Amino acid sequence: MKEDIKGITADKEKNFSEWYTQVIQKAELADYTKVSGCIVFKPYAYAIWEKIVEVVNDKIKKMGIKNVYFPLLIPESLFKKEKEHVEGFNPEVAWVTHTGNSKLNERLAIRPTSETIMYDSYSKWIRSWRDLPLRLNQWNSVIRWEFKHPVPFLRSREFLWNEGHTAFATKEEAEKECHEILEMYYEFVKDYLALYGIKGRKTEKEKFAGAEYTLSIEYFMPNGKAIQGPDAHFDGQNFAKAFNIKFIDKDEKEKYAWQNTWAISTRMLGVLIAVHGDDKGLVLPPKIAPNKVVIVPILFKKDKEKVIDYCTKLEKKLKKFDAIIDLREYNVGWKYNEWELKGVPLRLEVGPNDMKKKQVVMYRRDNHKKENVKITSLIKKIQDTLDDIQKNLYKKSKKLFEDNLVETDNAKDFENAIENGKFIKAYWCNSQDVEEKIKEKGAKILNIPLEQPKKLGKSLYHPERESKYMVYIAKSY
Amino acid sequence: MKEDIKGITADKEKNFSEWYTQVIQKAELADYTKVSGCIVFKPYAYAIWEKIVEVVNDKIKKMGIKNVYFPLLIPESLFKKEKEHVEGFNPEVAWVTHTGNSKLNERLAIRPTSETIMYDSYSKWIRSWRDLPLRLNQWNSVIRWEFKHPVPFLRSREFLWNEGHTAFATKEEAEKECHEILEMYYEFVKDYLALYGIKGRKTEKEKFAGAEYTLSIEYFMPNGKAIQGPDAHFDGQNFAKAFNIKFIDKDEKEKYAWQNTWAISTRMLGVLIAVHGDDKGLVLPPKIAPNKVVIVPILFKKDKEKVIDYCTKLEKKLKKFDAIIDLREYNVGWKYNEWELKGVPLRLEVGPNDMKKKQVVMYRRDNHKKENVKITSLIKKIQDTLDDIQKNLYKKSKKLFEDNLVETDNAKDFENAIENGKFIKAYWCNSQDVEEKIKEKGAKILNIPLEQPKKLGKSLYHPERESKYMVYIAKSY
Repeated sequence: MKEDIKGITADKEKNFSEWYTQVIQKAELADYTKVSGCIVFKPYAYAIWEKIVEVVNDKIKKMGIKNVYFPLLIPESLFKKEKEHVEGFNPEVAWVTHTGNSKLNERLAIRPTSETIMYDSYSKWIRSWRDLPLRLNQWNSVIRWEFKHPVPFLRSREFLWNEGHTAFATKEEAEKECHEILEMYYEFVKDYLALYGIKGRKTEKEKFAGAEYTLSIEYFMPNGKAIQGPDAHFDGQNFAKAFNIKFIDKDEKEKYAWQNTWAISTRMLGVLIAVHGDDKGLVLPPKIAPNKVVIVPILFKKDKEKVIDYCTKLEKKLKKFDAIIDLREYNVGWKYNEWELKGVPLRLEVGPNDMKKKQVVMYRRDNHKKENVKITSLIKKIQDTLDDIQKNLYKKSKKLFEDNLVETDNAKDFENAIENGKFIKAYWCNSQDVEEKIKEKGAKILNIPLEQPKKLGKSLYHPERESKYMVYIAKSY
Repeated sequence: MKEDIKGITADKEKNFSEWYTQVIQKAELADYTKVSGCIVFKPYAYAIWEKIVEVVNDKIKKMGIKNVYFPLLIPESLFKKEKEHVEGFNPEVAWVTHTGNSKLNERLAIRPTSETIMYDSYSKWIRSWRDLPLRLNQWNSVIRWEFKHPVPFLRSREFLWNEGHTAFATKEEAEKECHEILEMYYEFVKDYLALYGIKGRKTEKEKFAGAEYTLSIEYFMPNGKAIQGPDAHFDGQNFAKAFNIKFIDKDEKEKYAWQNTWAISTRMLGVLIAVHGDDKGLVLPPKIAPNKVVIVPILFKKDKEKVIDYCTKLEKKLKKFDAIIDLREYNVGWKYNEWELKGVPLRLEVGPNDMKKKQVVMYRRDNHKKENVKITSLIKKIQDTLDDIQKNLYKKSKKLFEDNLVETDNAKDFENAIENGKFIKAYWCNSQDVEEKIKEKGAKILNIPLEQPKKLGKSLYHPERESKYMVYIAKSY
């Protein structure tokens, strides 16, 4: 019986991990399966992902990039062509060795990412400068058989993503795209998912296996951990050389292409849930919510049919907000709980008296405030409030970062801050020994922010060394 | 150099197989890969598939079905739970045995279809009649490692599809949905892909492994072969019993759920290409064409910029037809060839004289007719002509079937007709020995049409037996 479902019983602040697990299950976002580390994306989570895909896909297409579909399976010989790439991914690859009752002559890797299958085709397709740029993208799922503790959405052995793979005639064009893509992802996540992030370049140690450098956006979770969001890798000519992607340029010389790869994944669903949710459950930013408004009629014996009729008409009027009406035979309190659990941005409560007064009671999921709204001004009021919720959630996300940010050049303060789950702003001498030291403390350099201050502070751990970059450091997924 | 690309050199009627291969490659629909039997869906084919997904997805959602995503991999123990199902699919399964350098304790099947992974969850989720119906769908790719000769789109070891999996409290509801889904697919393929098909029930021998019965739509190819299109399987309680999908009904009795599964796949791209194409290449039905109109400016030194400007404005005006303009530096004849190869329904040619006369020359891809159209009536004319092309292509597809249809109750005529690549209408006594006999002749019973004549003819091969059904028979993919 659905009536039995309880709200969230865990305290987000005190026991984030238990809270997260409860939200995932009680808001019907995901479920575990018999495949270890792989989840079902249930309809509600998948609907949010579909919204993400719709918006990002549109942005990608407007940039002139085209969608394709390459095979799921990659022959081992292709997979191993780029040295750094294979070293990076080999430990996590799922291998197909048999089909039916036959053993394959060559093992096939399930794509952990598709460079190696795509670039074999690129080397056939790219002949002349006229064939460039070649800018392709695919939406699919990938498998990375990690052995760390899996967490739904945040760390899954299978996840959904887009992977863009592009080739250009010049380094300049490729690098320009790489930054444009990062900016596109950044703006999308900011505008739609209402998440505050930091754009930057990964350190040499943390870059994508096979790339020249990796640009990333890092996000900040309520449990004091950071997490990498979308990324864009400038591959230079590394893959072009491994896969022989050459073209005859306008000057009739043969040259290697310059390449990028970039992605956003279902991991962002996890960040969205973790950052915005509260002790009542999920809180969805309006721009990404499958339903921005839910109408709950308050029914008594008297005027029951009239109120239902009134609310059904209202639902139609609010179609542009993907409004839904809850006519199920549960009590009103249970319904309120459920829609709060599911994070619907606005709830409209309509009883016989509201109907008579030509008003509704509007409840805001983000700040729990209720107010009466006249029907005549309802649409505008809803739109304004949704905009306000969207802004408010972004502000909260930024505040989460700022409230937990510690700037220090002192090793002891740094280590304390790490232990206390803070985000740290520090200055780095760009040497691997310091990066290792930070790792030993259980944290890492998230990225080197693209926006650097004019004046750098003292270098962490080695004040005698010249500091090269301001960096953010935290524990990280 | 792109200028080198040649048109189709094979004759569709005389050498269909070579013609099909050339169209696939020259119209840039697909390419072969190093994974045997798996292709790249290039941007042009993928854009057509995206249109199919968009329309079908919308229809599915309007029926109240929700999208989800289940894991790609299925543990062997789950996969083997339904006896007939595993017997049907086992010979084609790709098995993951290793991840990284470790051997898995249990092999994982790459989904050839997702019943077995989904129904394990259904058995957890379905408890009461209130949880029913459960109607879920996913868009993904599946692997079936067939050992027959692969043909791009028509027979691939990996293909894209939707798979709907639903559960109901009663047999009646389930069967009702099964027929509604078939009808939805039928109407979609008729209206959008302009393909004539026959709705019917598969024979016992040909039904889906694990189903009670399979409904299918069969299509007819220009090479005299039939091919199965979308299907909907009524699973009865077979999977429910194997996976223990039980619920407490309103009468407080425990019952097994009734289930359906249904799908449309990228195979339909192959049928679309094969049926509508001609010796100049692809012919796309307007409702599914990525671009319904291409504008080719005819440029001379005089008034060059003016014509470009004029055509660019025209492109904007024709945005609702996804019009594109070809401003590349190739000669006009080459451009005409390319857009004919790519099957764009309408081409508008605009030279300086047309511009002065405020007209365009409109070329219809389906019947090669050209006419002058005044700018003032252009939008209406385009819309009408696109509608006419759409209808015309469907008519042609129906004619292909009718022109090659032979009705016979005579064994000798039947065998001749099979040899000559005809589609055969015959009457069947519903016995397996006759079905086997037909198989020996290289053909098969496609399906038992839902629409049966009032009076049946004499039974094929056994006129002494009572005939039970009118059936269509042909060679088949």
